[in-house]
Amino acid sequence: MPSISRKGQKMPESPIRKLVPYAEAAKSRGVHVYHLNIGQPDIKTPQVALDAVKNNNIEVLAYSRTEGSETYRSKIAAYFHKLGIELDPAEILVTTGGSEALSFAMGSIADFGDEIIIPEPFYANYNGFATAMGVTVVPIVSRIEENFALPPIEEFEKLIGPKTKAILICNPGNPTGYLYSEEEIKKLAQLVLRHDIFLIADEVYREFTYDGKSHHSILHYKEIEEQAMVVDSVSKRYSMCGARIGCLISRNAEVIQTALKFAQARLSPPTYAQIASEAALETPQSYFDEVKEEYVARRNLLIRELEQIDGVKVARPQGAFYCIAELPVADADHFAQWLLESFNLENETVMVAPAAGFYASKGLGKNQIRIAYVLEKESLKKAVNILREGLKQYGSR
Amino acid sequence: MPSISRKGQKMPESPIRKLVPYAEAAKSRGVHVYHLNIGQPDIKTPQVALDAVKNNNIEVLAYSRTEGSETYRSKIAAYFHKLGIELDPAEILVTTGGSEALSFAMGSIADFGDEIIIPEPFYANYNGFATAMGVTVVPIVSRIEENFALPPIEEFEKLIGPKTKAILICNPGNPTGYLYSEEEIKKLAQLVLRHDIFLIADEVYREFTYDGKSHHSILHYKEIEEQAMVVDSVSKRYSMCGARIGCLISRNAEVIQTALKFAQARLSPPTYAQIASEAALETPQSYFDEVKEEYVARRNLLIRELEQIDGVKVARPQGAFYCIAELPVADADHFAQWLLESFNLENETVMVAPAAGFYASKGLGKNQIRIAYVLEKESLKKAVNILREGLKQYGSR
Ligand SMILES: Cc1ncc(COP(=O)(O)O)c(C=O)c1O
Ligand SMILES: Cc1ncc(COP(=O)(O)O)c(C=O)c1O
Repeated sequence: MPSISRKGQKMPESPIRKLVPYAEAAKSRGVHVYHLNIGQPDIKTPQVALDAVKNNNIEVLAYSRTEGSETYRSKIAAYFHKLGIELDPAEILVTTGGSEALSFAMGSIADFGDEIIIPEPFYANYNGFATAMGVTVVPIVSRIEENFALPPIEEFEKLIGPKTKAILICNPGNPTGYLYSEEEIKKLAQLVLRHDIFLIADEVYREFTYDGKSHHSILHYKEIEEQAMVVDSVSKRYSMCGARIGCLISRNAEVIQTALKFAQARLSPPTYAQIASEAALETPQSYFDEVKEEYVARRNLLIRELEQIDGVKVARPQGAFYCIAELPVADADHFAQWLLESFNLENETVMVAPAAGFYASKGLGKNQIRIAYVLEKESLKKAVNILREGLKQYGSR
Repeated sequence: MPSISRKGQKMPESPIRKLVPYAEAAKSRGVHVYHLNIGQPDIKTPQVALDAVKNNNIEVLAYSRTEGSETYRSKIAAYFHKLGIELDPAEILVTTGGSEALSFAMGSIADFGDEIIIPEPFYANYNGFATAMGVTVVPIVSRIEENFALPPIEEFEKLIGPKTKAILICNPGNPTGYLYSEEEIKKLAQLVLRHDIFLIADEVYREFTYDGKSHHSILHYKEIEEQAMVVDSVSKRYSMCGARIGCLISRNAEVIQTALKFAQARLSPPTYAQIASEAALETPQSYFDEVKEEYVARRNLLIRELEQIDGVKVARPQGAFYCIAELPVADADHFAQWLLESFNLENETVMVAPAAGFYASKGLGKNQIRIAYVLEKESLKKAVNILREGLKQYGSR
């Protein structure tokens, strides 16, 4: 039997995946499972986007332009204009989700064995894209005690070497919910300028910022025009995860030309999804206001409830819709499985994501979980209650 | 300014891309351009697929399952059953186009520096996927004189070494239109068994076979269950290129599990497109009969007309909708550009794909072009006429 590649062997499994069979088994025993483990919002997709697809009049479902349709790219530029960011449509490459933008970004700037520094905990699929592209992830620890703020610049300096091609941040962060301050972004900008490396910002949660805080896109900083690369996506902003549309943005023409060659090979992003995404840009502000209000209410409830549980420590997220909680258990992986396998409260239980999978450094995050607050408040409250009772019964293993 | 990767520099440009500005310039001079250069069929998408999307009742456009929806995968298995091929849905991984299936296939079995042998001329984007994945393409020449039949097995044997992980064929072939015989497929099966390497067959044109010839899928051969990997796509079969749905098929569980890890990183294939693709499986046979009839008529016309041009040699395609023609010119690249830049017949000209871009060996195919017969007969006839007059005027440069 021919053997698969070492790359294939090294490809990480999704950190949630291995719990799925236990969740399915629980369901087949008639136990209701609250899913706090995935970033799939329950929010309705804007009607204007859904309608655009229903009312399409395509007769030949043809390839679109490799870089995305002209009109869509102009409208993306107009969206950024409203945020005070001036972009030429040629600086925007439409991709099949933010996921593909991440692959193209890594492939365009890093060779086999090159390194990208990423504050951990980080979105676990960065590992997958890096492995697929042959790139090495170099983690730098951020801490729950500091709300997962940017690690000190000196720590970055220690890790930057001849193979370092970029720093990748996620802002606001999945899984941390941390929102970088203007100060932090400026420090990063100086750092990448000093070392002449790229700064990739995954800003797919850009619109999800709370407590009156605003998002500081790396695109605001003209000094790093050549260094800045932004990954964006319609998935979360419009609750359109299934569309599979995102984009890669860079003012560095060489970067976009290179990414375009990766894009040419796969021909084009999906056509229906571009119709939906273009229409989604017409979503009224009231939609976002409501969504934000909902997430803030959920976050407040979640944090308040979690903080009342003995021995639980929570970072206070100010963006996205995730938070990391430290539990009074030795092995959150085991606890998460136990919740599905051996526990229920009135025939209900909860699925959480063990946080170790979001760290690249072995041994970190073992007593942490990530909670996605993508359920409405009542369910969220019940889910946290189950967690509390579960912790009591699980004891201090 | 930070530098892009060597990988990025090596990523090939689409062989047609560089002619695009000349085509656009021609159009802006008011010259009508017949596009024989791309594999975008003009055939209408089956109504049943278009309607399924128009009638969808999605409210939250959510991620689908990473491996594709259960129902869609079962229906793909049922489609293969009708072709006499038994598959378990678990052996099918739904991908974002055949393109993504090709990337996943290469990544799953080949490491940086590993080799895949491909008969040339071949679909140019194989180069792009291989470069992105760090895989080396080793070409093996097939010849127009032999209609681009499978090169002798001894020639393959000479190229197989410790780094060889697979042989990749396209059947029927783009750009050759060649349909491999049962004999040829059997020889390949023995070869990959002998060397214990993979056999990847890109069968996206499976249904486009002419002259009563039938397609021989590598999935028919149980001996190579562990070796066989098939790339499929809805793009051409249902004229649904813009959907971006394909699949990777393998009975080797390790291969599918590995490809699934690549798939997990990118979350899921597009949701609307899966709705369309699932519905497309209900397309009545009459649709395919008509399409096939149309393509046969086009091919017959094209070949007949081409053969009447002095000095033109054509391979007789028995599948797909491409053919390679050898022209009495030294540099088909220059000729193709000249047709757009400096020639017109009653204000019309033609865009063809220079074939050199489909060869990996430098210097091969310089006097060849690829013609996609994706235009209706009248246009096709006019286009060939333009080619004839162009050749006359261009002379023997
Ligand atoms: C931080 C982050 N980046 C990128 C993605 C990729 O999303 P998509 O490919 O749906 O745009 C996700 C999805 O969860 C994410 O959380
Ligand atoms: C031989 C071959 N394989 C694969 C593809 C990829 O097609 P898609 O990604 O649209 O399925 C094409 C498209 O032209 C092709 O010609």
